[in-house]
Amino acid sequence: MSRSIAILGGTGPEGLGLARRWAKAGETVIIGSRDAARADEAARNLKEIVGATAQISGMENSAAAAAAKIIVFTVPFSGHAALLKQIKPVIKPDAVVIDTTVPLAASVGGRATRTLGIWEGSVAQQTAELVPKGVAVVAAFHNASAESLNSDESVECDVLVCSDQPAATEAALDLAAKIPGMRGIDAGKLENARTVEQITALLIALNIKHKGHSGIRITGLPASAYRG
Amino acid sequence: MSRSIAILGGTGPEGLGLARRWAKAGETVIIGSRDAARADEAARNLKEIVGATAQISGMENSAAAAAAKIIVFTVPFSGHAALLKQIKPVIKPDAVVIDTTVPLAASVGGRATRTLGIWEGSVAQQTAELVPKGVAVVAAFHNASAESLNSDESVECDVLVCSDQPAATEAALDLAAKIPGMRGIDAGKLENARTVEQITALLIALNIKHKGHSGIRITGLPASAYRG
Repeated sequence: MSRSIAILGGTGPEGLGLARRWAKAGETVIIGSRDAARADEAARNLKEIVGATAQISGMENSAAAAAAKIIVFTVPFSGHAALLKQIKPVIKPDAVVIDTTVPLAASVGGRATRTLGIWEGSVAQQTAELVPKGVAVVAAFHNASAESLNSDESVECDVLVCSDQPAATEAALDLAAKIPGMRGIDAGKLENARTVEQITALLIALNIKHKGHSGIRITGLPASAYRG
Repeated sequence: MSRSIAILGGTGPEGLGLARRWAKAGETVIIGSRDAARADEAARNLKEIVGATAQISGMENSAAAAAAKIIVFTVPFSGHAALLKQIKPVIKPDAVVIDTTVPLAASVGGRATRTLGIWEGSVAQQTAELVPKGVAVVAAFHNASAESLNSDESVECDVLVCSDQPAATEAALDLAAKIPGMRGIDAGKLENARTVEQITALLIALNIKHKGHSGIRITGLPASAYRG
């Protein structure tokens, strides 16, 4: 039996898109939501898209986190810290938390093209302060367009992976490589998430101005830098 | 006679690379330096590379700024504000200032993979507060690798252009399109330079980790969004 991936806030567009892609790649995916019924409905809908053999279930966020080895945060920033505190008692001691959260000002009524200042420097660094000791935190999957993830097309976006724990970096690089078109790139320390998170607000500004679904590619690195 | 482009701090690798590419495209380029003799030497060396018909001269920074319609800042952040104050009296009232400056912590003895906090939000926004009224400021050309600019190869990097003045955005988009491989993209307001400047520190981190000369490409926008 493969490890489970819990996608918290997985009924939102980013979470659903990642769930769809990873389920398609054969991963066991648990969609987490505040509302277990909504999670279950999203899981059933996704199964119809991906196929009956897909390993997708839906659970309330805490139950999903408790059942998983990999916990992916795809909630708006405004609910992020509260959810993290809620699930903290049930996180497995050897779990990996993948944080995709961007501190968009929109999450507190501001603009989606602007970000909030985070005392720790980035949401991912805040997460690292809040998780139980031993739980690894990795920042990744901030910049891919939800529209693209929720389709069958190749995702034209590189995934910049930031962590202070090599095993967590590895896990995120591997999950990036499982999505057609995506390439994972080790972008160094968790603190570098500061910039990776901001990039999403810039991509949103480009999407609004030019009516697109933008992503980024990193050029000029040796082939060994790209996973996928 | 075409307008002149003054590249202040143009004896550094980024400035020299831009001078080389724009001179090759037929632009009239003035390399600015604190030291007129160094500027002149750099101009003569560059002429040997680009060809005898290239329009390249070298001048002290203030003289270069006074002679130009487009003034490009390619100095380290530590010397940026002082240079701007120095040239302020001679900037033409209808000049365009293109700011490529990244607030790398390295400019004050820290790491090149980290940035300093700028009160105004970005170096370019600080510049906009310091220039004479009427002078347009545009942030651009932060992310291209100097190694790539100083070669004859295609520059695999998009140029994110941020300004509150459409004519300045146009000027920078056009200059991006003159460099083979580069594409200019209107990235909206000057405030968006906050993220574009940070991206350079992240690319430096990638270069160190993976031993490359990285750049960025923006995917997923309609063709009309790309100039070049």
